[in-house]
Amino acid sequence: MAKNVVVIGGVACGPKAAARLRRLNAQARITVIEQGEYISYAGCGLPYFVGGDIKEFEHLFATAAGAARNAGYFQKVKDIQFATRTRAESIDRTAKVVHAKNLATGESIEFPYDNLVLATGSRPFRPPVEGLELKGVSFLTKVEDSVFLREEVNESKGGKAVIIGAGLIGLEAAEAFRKKGWQVQIIEMLDQPLGGLMDFEMAKAIDNALFENNVMTAYGEKVVRIEGDENGHCKSVITDEGSYPADVVLVATGFRPNAELAKSAGLEIGPTGGIAVNEHMQTSDPAIYAGGDCVECRHLVTGKPVFVPLGSTANKHGRVIGDNIAGLESRFPGVLGTMVVKVFNMNAGRTGLTEREAAEAGFDPVCSIAPGFDKAHYYPGSALIGLKLIADRKTEKVLGLQAFGGGEVARRVDVAVAAITMGATVEQLAEFDLGYAPPFAQAVDAILNAANVANNKMRGVTRSIMPQRVKQMIEAEEDFILLDVRTPREYEMGHIDAPQTMNLPLGELREKALSALPQDKPIVTMCKISQRGYEAQRTLAGMGFKDVAFMDGGLFVWPYPDDVM
Amino acid sequence: MAKNVVVIGGVACGPKAAARLRRLNAQARITVIEQGEYISYAGCGLPYFVGGDIKEFEHLFATAAGAARNAGYFQKVKDIQFATRTRAESIDRTAKVVHAKNLATGESIEFPYDNLVLATGSRPFRPPVEGLELKGVSFLTKVEDSVFLREEVNESKGGKAVIIGAGLIGLEAAEAFRKKGWQVQIIEMLDQPLGGLMDFEMAKAIDNALFENNVMTAYGEKVVRIEGDENGHCKSVITDEGSYPADVVLVATGFRPNAELAKSAGLEIGPTGGIAVNEHMQTSDPAIYAGGDCVECRHLVTGKPVFVPLGSTANKHGRVIGDNIAGLESRFPGVLGTMVVKVFNMNAGRTGLTEREAAEAGFDPVCSIAPGFDKAHYYPGSALIGLKLIADRKTEKVLGLQAFGGGEVARRVDVAVAAITMGATVEQLAEFDLGYAPPFAQAVDAILNAANVANNKMRGVTRSIMPQRVKQMIEAEEDFILLDVRTPREYEMGHIDAPQTMNLPLGELREKALSALPQDKPIVTMCKISQRGYEAQRTLAGMGFKDVAFMDGGLFVWPYPDDVM
Repeated sequence: MAKNVVVIGGVACGPKAAARLRRLNAQARITVIEQGEYISYAGCGLPYFVGGDIKEFEHLFATAAGAARNAGYFQKVKDIQFATRTRAESIDRTAKVVHAKNLATGESIEFPYDNLVLATGSRPFRPPVEGLELKGVSFLTKVEDSVFLREEVNESKGGKAVIIGAGLIGLEAAEAFRKKGWQVQIIEMLDQPLGGLMDFEMAKAIDNALFENNVMTAYGEKVVRIEGDENGHCKSVITDEGSYPADVVLVATGFRPNAELAKSAGLEIGPTGGIAVNEHMQTSDPAIYAGGDCVECRHLVTGKPVFVPLGSTANKHGRVIGDNIAGLESRFPGVLGTMVVKVFNMNAGRTGLTEREAAEAGFDPVCSIAPGFDKAHYYPGSALIGLKLIADRKTEKVLGLQAFGGGEVARRVDVAVAAITMGATVEQLAEFDLGYAPPFAQAVDAILNAANVANNKMRGVTRSIMPQRVKQMIEAEEDFILLDVRTPREYEMGHIDAPQTMNLPLGELREKALSALPQDKPIVTMCKISQRGYEAQRTLAGMGFKDVAFMDGGLFVWPYPDDVM
Repeated sequence: MAKNVVVIGGVACGPKAAARLRRLNAQARITVIEQGEYISYAGCGLPYFVGGDIKEFEHLFATAAGAARNAGYFQKVKDIQFATRTRAESIDRTAKVVHAKNLATGESIEFPYDNLVLATGSRPFRPPVEGLELKGVSFLTKVEDSVFLREEVNESKGGKAVIIGAGLIGLEAAEAFRKKGWQVQIIEMLDQPLGGLMDFEMAKAIDNALFENNVMTAYGEKVVRIEGDENGHCKSVITDEGSYPADVVLVATGFRPNAELAKSAGLEIGPTGGIAVNEHMQTSDPAIYAGGDCVECRHLVTGKPVFVPLGSTANKHGRVIGDNIAGLESRFPGVLGTMVVKVFNMNAGRTGLTEREAAEAGFDPVCSIAPGFDKAHYYPGSALIGLKLIADRKTEKVLGLQAFGGGEVARRVDVAVAAITMGATVEQLAEFDLGYAPPFAQAVDAILNAANVANNKMRGVTRSIMPQRVKQMIEAEEDFILLDVRTPREYEMGHIDAPQTMNLPLGELREKALSALPQDKPIVTMCKISQRGYEAQRTLAGMGFKDVAFMDGGLFVWPYPDDVM
């Protein structure tokens, strides 16, 4: 007898599970319930629709071949029924029936199932502040949000947008607003953008990109309320430190899984608040699968449950669910929390664990911050990228990578994804036979170089020191030499302005170090990207200087731009 | 006592080994012997110097920070002595002495060593044809070659260049000549460019890029001789099929390792003709190391020795050699034969084994050809890339990847490099948590999609057929239906012109297939990129059609452009 499969949720995981099941099983009756009007849309594209990169509303719903992914398309091409504007209200697991309501007519409908798929997605977190209901205050998670915001930024020219939250959506939206000529103010509770996703010194580079593109930022401020005018329209955002005028307020403070339906049906909910599933994407009820933004995933490095809602993961979940319902055993092993983002002319990304996460998870992290060129440095258009590789001292395995820069970043992130997933050590990563030609990489690719530096540190071949620690040493007025080994011309164009700073170019080091540098003081060598800094560290150590370290990342990653004169 | 280390060869591996050793060992006396005038230059950049992408001669020798990497630089910064214009003539392994000759003065010099490093590089293969000595005939491997060619293409406008060989150098040079407005004719013995590196249908895409950029190609032709004029300058290239006028002839027919010095010293030479080394890059004499273009490497998939000269590998070798001489144990595991190349507006790459190589090596290759977009298809600037993934049916491990397209290709190649190196199966690859955001990838990245398709084939979930086989079926006038399921408009704009071709759009398939298609004939479904073709295959199979397969790669990878009307 043909299976009856009901899917709740029609955006990413739901339609994918339905389509995959149909390709494997021609007989199953497949129905997708969706409370909204729109189905199978590109939720991740919404910020680009607001900013106008995506010109037409229809593009958010079109297949690569240009067909509109509406209910008719799914019916005709895939023999999948959609019930839109229909809300699932409860699940009777004993009778195997979903009780739903047609939101247009108010009518109750029952959907019997043999297998049920929960793809109920996530919703934006609503911070506990007054004024979220005011006109002009929006989230950016639904198609309707993007239509509203696009109309707002197009209608009035030169308005003021306040974005609450410097996460992915906040950053992408900042670029969209700026493209339309709006003033943008970001307010973020933490002291950096992408808090939790990137370590401080790497996130600061993103902050610099915001600064250079005239996005104003207020870190470490907490929003207290949004104030409205006499028409019920937002007027300003009030924080614990100030007030920011706002024609539009975008609230982008993260997501929460829509797990209520599952919870009230008695299904197990995980510690993150997402629906708990096994490797087959099965909930605690074997007849019910769940995937996409409403579930929690296993982190592949820590083994712990995490909530990382992402369209790419939702698609993987859908496929695995379709497989398993069709009787084809299939597993979803977990995630690394990978993200890539474009912030104006900067690309950034991360995967695995940050230094802080690694330490918290009980690893002994060894980090290398190794900037390098994305192409051969002499090839036109080559650009510097900053990489931070995190590895475990004990197992020498790669734990995480963070990257930013004007050049190609996603490639290095994806290589790290593969390395971490497969349990590669830094030594194994360093020998990867990655593609090389001048338009694509240095002869030693930036990520291989980062692996070499981490390996050097693990094997005690070199000593280095993080920029934050150097900053502390400067502020504590410690007695050390911050030796900038760049050329005098580079030095004049900008260096760390501190009493400890001294310029002695690498080319003169062997000749002059013994006379110019004291043997009894700690020396921290540095340059632009820490390559010459490293060479200088090795040179001075070789000459007998006892306490020499180079500063990780050089000036390119130095997170305190105000110190550079 | 300080070690005496002599390095023969001053371009890539040699200087790297010397520099790495110096960083680990401040005492060693390090001397590099180089027969040429130039040292530590970017050999891979030479084609870009010819074409003018690299403007200044000096850029080929400069560090990223702009310092000139000449003998003075190595002396001052790294305490490494260079003896340029000095040729090593023989090695006395008993006395541990290199006998050399100063090419400027004719004087004999002895270099005693404790450890010797052979980094003698490779030389271009000289095909056995008359006329190689004529003026205007050049290779492109040395700095002097690139200077000659750059002057040639700049001096006379609109000349005719004949390139013998459609390998990497040949393709890069073709672009360089075209940039200067020259007519370019490539002559290649095999029936495709990048023979051996890519399977036929993938290489054809590169041929299309050449065609679109007005590079003339003659495949399957063998050069017989080069004819000169009365001034001893080349005039034309004569093949077994015709004659091609030539103002400049570039010979780019591969490389041979410079292993003669090693051989005459009694060191073991491998089956490829390269110097045999172990994982520590030691030759059969433990005091002598060798690396770079003069050695053979182990292929990481087959375990067999291969000769793949490449700047990236030479740098890795140098580092490992420096480590081991310094007493830091370090290994070079092998290569995958990875390459990436820019051919005009197309990027291409490959790693691991081709389908043919996999079959020859005794694997049972399962291949998926899965084109996809390099970014979200709705994101501005997204472009199609064609991926061919090769996996082993028995172990399900990934064996190789080939890729081409106007979009980002190197990232997918590098992910495959990591996957193959670490022994990932297609199922593991399909679940990699790769970076996703609309400016960087589809929600299901193209390489994950390729892994899914390969997995489908292995698990018998779908059936497909390679384009070459479809071509055979057409030519043999077999009785089958080539079902193009694109829209009528797409079909009109270009389709495979064969009696078996029929157009029935995917959207009408469920409704009309039973009446429009015979149940008793084989059906091959196809579309632009084989996504709808696959959907159609599943749909028809589900409707009871017995013999349905989709055509791998769709029209995007169809290697016979003349058939498309």
